[in-house]
Amino acid sequence: MPKKISEIGEWGLIDRIRKDLKTTRFVQKGAGDDAAVITIPGSSKRLLYTTDMLVEDVHFTKDHSPKAIGHKAIACSMSDVAAMGGLPKYAVVSIGISGDVEMPFVNQLYAGMNEIAVKFGTCIVGGDTVKSRKLIINVTLLGEAKESEIVYRSGARKDDVIFVTGLLGRSYQSGHHLKFIPRVMESQYIVGKFKPTSMIDISDGLGSDLSHIMKESGVGAVVYEDKIPRNRKATVHQALTDGEDYELLFTLPADRAKRVKNQMRAKFFFGEIGKIIDKKEGFVLLDKNGQPRTLKVEGFNHF
Amino acid sequence: MPKKISEIGEWGLIDRIRKDLKTTRFVQKGAGDDAAVITIPGSSKRLLYTTDMLVEDVHFTKDHSPKAIGHKAIACSMSDVAAMGGLPKYAVVSIGISGDVEMPFVNQLYAGMNEIAVKFGTCIVGGDTVKSRKLIINVTLLGEAKESEIVYRSGARKDDVIFVTGLLGRSYQSGHHLKFIPRVMESQYIVGKFKPTSMIDISDGLGSDLSHIMKESGVGAVVYEDKIPRNRKATVHQALTDGEDYELLFTLPADRAKRVKNQMRAKFFFGEIGKIIDKKEGFVLLDKNGQPRTLKVEGFNHF
Repeated sequence: MPKKISEIGEWGLIDRIRKDLKTTRFVQKGAGDDAAVITIPGSSKRLLYTTDMLVEDVHFTKDHSPKAIGHKAIACSMSDVAAMGGLPKYAVVSIGISGDVEMPFVNQLYAGMNEIAVKFGTCIVGGDTVKSRKLIINVTLLGEAKESEIVYRSGARKDDVIFVTGLLGRSYQSGHHLKFIPRVMESQYIVGKFKPTSMIDISDGLGSDLSHIMKESGVGAVVYEDKIPRNRKATVHQALTDGEDYELLFTLPADRAKRVKNQMRAKFFFGEIGKIIDKKEGFVLLDKNGQPRTLKVEGFNHF
Repeated sequence: MPKKISEIGEWGLIDRIRKDLKTTRFVQKGAGDDAAVITIPGSSKRLLYTTDMLVEDVHFTKDHSPKAIGHKAIACSMSDVAAMGGLPKYAVVSIGISGDVEMPFVNQLYAGMNEIAVKFGTCIVGGDTVKSRKLIINVTLLGEAKESEIVYRSGARKDDVIFVTGLLGRSYQSGHHLKFIPRVMESQYIVGKFKPTSMIDISDGLGSDLSHIMKESGVGAVVYEDKIPRNRKATVHQALTDGEDYELLFTLPADRAKRVKNQMRAKFFFGEIGKIIDKKEGFVLLDKNGQPRTLKVEGFNHF
């Protein structure tokens, strides 16, 4: 019996798709990080390349404002570029939309996209418009970074300290997922001053996204429950599993971590939440009494 | 009363969206051609950047084979890159899909994409997977071209001869829209040997896509009905308005056009169908007796 997508889950689906993808030597990193990394002969910059699809009733509903929906659609791709250490530059936007939608809705949708885009020097350079009963927005974003600035999920090493850039949990309930500012400035600051060993943006949930770093880096991690910066009303479980926080999660060797703690609290918030341990120790969550707790780290699964 | 998208139509919608887009000096061409053109400092190549969304029951149905759907999804973006004179290189693919879909369907969908992609040296380097009741596929494609090879819609001049690369009409009925080979080789040949003054791929229909060249170039056009190469059973009207042919439509000054006709029939098919005239003469369609006919050139409108 052939298996359904719902049986193998989102990660099984992605793994299956990745298995058949072949890339050329100009692809420095293909599928499997926040963005692909492409080399352009003659240029010292690398291209960062990412795409995100948002579908009505999955990522937003008709009750949300079109401006907020537009904001979210492009901001989550900007967050991916930031998570690689790059600057977002050029977007193409496809929308699937019903003919019954009124033009002011469309204008607001693009106003939301343009407003956050220009803030970070990003421009929309093209797109596609098709008919669809439910609203669909797909944003593809090209970013740029120097080779030396690019941060992958795969560089975390034992004893590295784990940081997050902001408060986690209840993003959907609080509306944060529609108005977050992608951590482009924080990323530039961290990358320029401290060169993180690994980085990812928290879209699926801290537990799930940390497990991506663990898997790609071949390490384990310990997280101190009471150190996780949480949004108002968010439980520890919500901070670990809700997703759509769009904060950056990154790791630094102990010496560089100390410098972050000493110098930077004034400019940006970087919360230390744990450290990298041996792969064989897996994912350890410690409560405020130092007692280990188990967490199902699967995180958000669409299917 | 605010207007609905269905009232202003696809072109009205696109014009409205374009009005608010701001670009930087690195964007050599933004929205309004088959692909955007981006300059990368240090590189002699330009990036061509295009995106296409396909939605179930609009561009294909559940009755079509997943392999054919995958083929179409990426081939239509490859056709856009070819229409600019470039080579398709790097794709990112988003799919919206139901959890009830079985994995062999997904495997075949990507097999269809990979098969046509590798034929032209294109690779899939990333993507997104989300839940959706109806199948949605969004392909974004990056291509490359030397600055001197890029062909826009805007360069057609009076007395240029108009060519198409293949037979038109009944693409949907005949299944051509699911199995066409993007005209990458033809484009390379034309661009390398003859430097067309304008080019576009026929996705909305000959009448509509020629009108894009007319509009962007500020010219008129005369087309000889009986010279339009038509598919079996296709009427002149179908050849002019059906769309999804994915042939290239291009223009050449008379002297270069003569060279095409003399030298190339053996290698590729290039059908001469008319010529560029003054803007004030508009779009003239001549029947086999030389009598003018009128054509509503709006072409395919999704909404």
